[in-house]
Amino acid sequence: MSTLAPPADPESDPRVKAVFDDIRATRKSDFINNFWLYLAFDPALLEDTWHGVKEVMAKPSALDPLTKELIYIAVSLTNSCRYCVHSHTAAARAKGMTDAIYADLLRVVSTAGRTNQLLNALQVPVDTVFDAEATVERN
Amino acid sequence: MSTLAPPADPESDPRVKAVFDDIRATRKSDFINNFWLYLAFDPALLEDTWHGVKEVMAKPSALDPLTKELIYIAVSLTNSCRYCVHSHTAAARAKGMTDAIYADLLRVVSTAGRTNQLLNALQVPVDTVFDAEATVERN
Amino acid sequence: MSTLAPPADPESDPRVKAVFDDIRATRKSDFINNFWLYLAFDPALLEDTWHGVKEVMAKPSALDPLTKELIYIAVSLTNSCRYCVHSHTAAARAKGMTDAIYADLLRVVSTAGRTNQLLNALQVPVDTVFDAEATVERN
Amino acid sequence: MSTLAPPADPESDPRVKAVFDDIRATRKSDFINNFWLYLAFDPALLEDTWHGVKEVMAKPSALDPLTKELIYIAVSLTNSCRYCVHSHTAAARAKGMTDAIYADLLRVVSTAGRTNQLLNALQVPVDTVFDAEATVERN
Amino acid sequence: MSTLAPPADPESDPRVKAVFDDIRATRKSDFINNFWLYLAFDPALLEDTWHGVKEVMAKPSALDPLTKELIYIAVSLTNSCRYCVHSHTAAARAKGMTDAIYADLLRVVSTAGRTNQLLNALQVPVDTVFDAEATVERN
Amino acid sequence: MSTLAPPADPESDPRVKAVFDDIRATRKSDFINNFWLYLAFDPALLEDTWHGVKEVMAKPSALDPLTKELIYIAVSLTNSCRYCVHSHTAAARAKGMTDAIYADLLRVVSTAGRTNQLLNALQVPVDTVFDAEATVERN
Repeated sequence: MSTLAPPADPESDPRVKAVFDDIRATRKSDFINNFWLYLAFDPALLEDTWHGVKEVMAKPSALDPLTKELIYIAVSLTNSCRYCVHSHTAAARAKGMTDAIYADLLRVVSTAGRTNQLLNALQVPVDTVFDAEATVERN
Repeated sequence: MSTLAPPADPESDPRVKAVFDDIRATRKSDFINNFWLYLAFDPALLEDTWHGVKEVMAKPSALDPLTKELIYIAVSLTNSCRYCVHSHTAAARAKGMTDAIYADLLRVVSTAGRTNQLLNALQVPVDTVFDAEATVERN
Repeated sequence: MSTLAPPADPESDPRVKAVFDDIRATRKSDFINNFWLYLAFDPALLEDTWHGVKEVMAKPSALDPLTKELIYIAVSLTNSCRYCVHSHTAAARAKGMTDAIYADLLRVVSTAGRTNQLLNALQVPVDTVFDAEATVERN
Repeated sequence: MSTLAPPADPESDPRVKAVFDDIRATRKSDFINNFWLYLAFDPALLEDTWHGVKEVMAKPSALDPLTKELIYIAVSLTNSCRYCVHSHTAAARAKGMTDAIYADLLRVVSTAGRTNQLLNALQVPVDTVFDAEATVERN
Repeated sequence: MSTLAPPADPESDPRVKAVFDDIRATRKSDFINNFWLYLAFDPALLEDTWHGVKEVMAKPSALDPLTKELIYIAVSLTNSCRYCVHSHTAAARAKGMTDAIYADLLRVVSTAGRTNQLLNALQVPVDTVFDAEATVERN
Repeated sequence: MSTLAPPADPESDPRVKAVFDDIRATRKSDFINNFWLYLAFDPALLEDTWHGVKEVMAKPSALDPLTKELIYIAVSLTNSCRYCVHSHTAAARAKGMTDAIYADLLRVVSTAGRTNQLLNALQVPVDTVFDAEATVERN
């Protein structure tokens, strides 16, 4: 159940078709998942969202593709975004996430969830040594 | 401003002293940050929390130490845990996070924040291809 | 699947019947959605909740009814409240939300989601010019 | 730093004075904390909020006053509401929360934070035995 | 739909069997709910998680078992953890939560949700009287 | 206290200078707030973020500028993003938000916070009439 119905024939709109073609080319797969299909109700929103995601997730950068997917999962589960958790867990597996890596990810996110609750409860003052403006030399 | 005052002389309690000694040995540093200092009001809570965090963050595992800190930051900022963001950003820098890696982390977490909001709004049905029970061969 | 079963015959309780009649009169519709049906297990909770929601959402005030629904959706999706997102998206459509307005809402909430993550990561100090106590003349 | 300046002389408005008098009488204290002072910029909002909070927190009900404060803290820290955490931790202490109870609260909220992250990651199907509509006999 | 398939025969692993046996003994029930079944893909993660939860929830401590479940529910619903809300609501009922207690829990969590939003909006300065380091005498 | 120090002379980088000039031109003000100053440590991140925010918030669209700021505030306070709440509350005032509008915003966000908690607790099934794919005719 969604809050809008996807367009009946999305690729009849040339802007939507161009994005879908780019998704297929970028991923080397014919599959268009529901997120993009539903976003196609507004071609400008589809374009902006896809270009933003592609720029960050598909372009070579300081972090390798699997690490980026693990971070994406971590944010998505903390935000309780069910669709995002499913799609990015699948993407992480496709990029090499083994069960051992997945278990390690779960260990870190659950440890963070545990200490986040403690620190949001205690409101402990931040140590001044953690102040980047005062103490960190950056490269 | 915190919700409790830290113990005046925490290491007079031998259980607290043992944890603090282990923190210093594990980190090869004399510095005890405020989180542990404030938790010392309850030695059992301090012990459980430190052992849990040490087990996950300081022990060799499938993910390298820097990747684990990046994931920790991602959860902490999504939970708006100010102390956690500061302490783990400092830890990530100490483990090799450059400005280029930090910028890449920011790119991924902000992209995830963007699409999380979209998908929590649209309530798009999860594609069946993402169902691990149906489709994924695990290693 | 819910955490409690709704009452079998809720309107046999006169307090529940009074609330349901008021819901029908306020909305000019016979339809009672599940939220109110399930809350009827505790008539006092049902009364307080309905009166609070009606006071804010159905009474003329500084903001028009559609704007209030858009804000309600924004909070609900950020809190990952699935039922709330569905019910208030439907309410917004009934009050005039077009696809163009919906796309614009999605653009704003996803932009906010993006910068929220950045700022919760960076912990940038708030500019003093934003301090209402120091600088803003209010009307 | 706040988003609005509190009224200079709030009790010159008789509606504000009536609420402040009721706060003082309910709490048997002359102290008006900042939340109510700042809300006084809109007397109707102040009245509704105070009456809602008083009805739930100060009136005898199924749960004792301290338990209600512990639940309030749990919600507030999970929502990262700094002011709420401070004011309700102080209220809980005033109602009898010892350090041993506080440590136990911290144990429960941090355990919940840990398993919440795991389950939001794994998206484990809810066991049908937990379906109240199918299985629970209610009293 | 979950992000991984549970092991086909989890108790063939002796570490998993030992945890499952302990769950059954602790709860005096043969039922193993899905959370533990799915976690069994990684025996070490299963062990750590179960031991942590058992230590906090099943061992006598400052708070009674029902109060601990109510706090667990409060955290879980604030984190939008659907599975957790279902399993801990069922656990709370098994430990004596009546409909009257449940309605009271709902009153507190919804009041907290309401004032959390107000205070996160207003960014009201925390009263210095709430500073535990300055003012609270602890027992 | 922030997690990185802002660049000492950000406008010595021509990409940063171009963004800052565009911020000043778009806002018809010489003031550059800290968010952009700190983001300048990575010119590409600064460019992408500014262009994304400008496109959504400064370009005429289906919603008027003040309504967009109100929605932005609603998301930001729900995410406990302190900086975002301050900067967008100031922006909303600059675009015409009166105290009466602000009080109404607070009424809606706190009502949503209240019912979000209730519905995340009850896990009420979504009424099929809210399913856009089944029932809504879109324009």
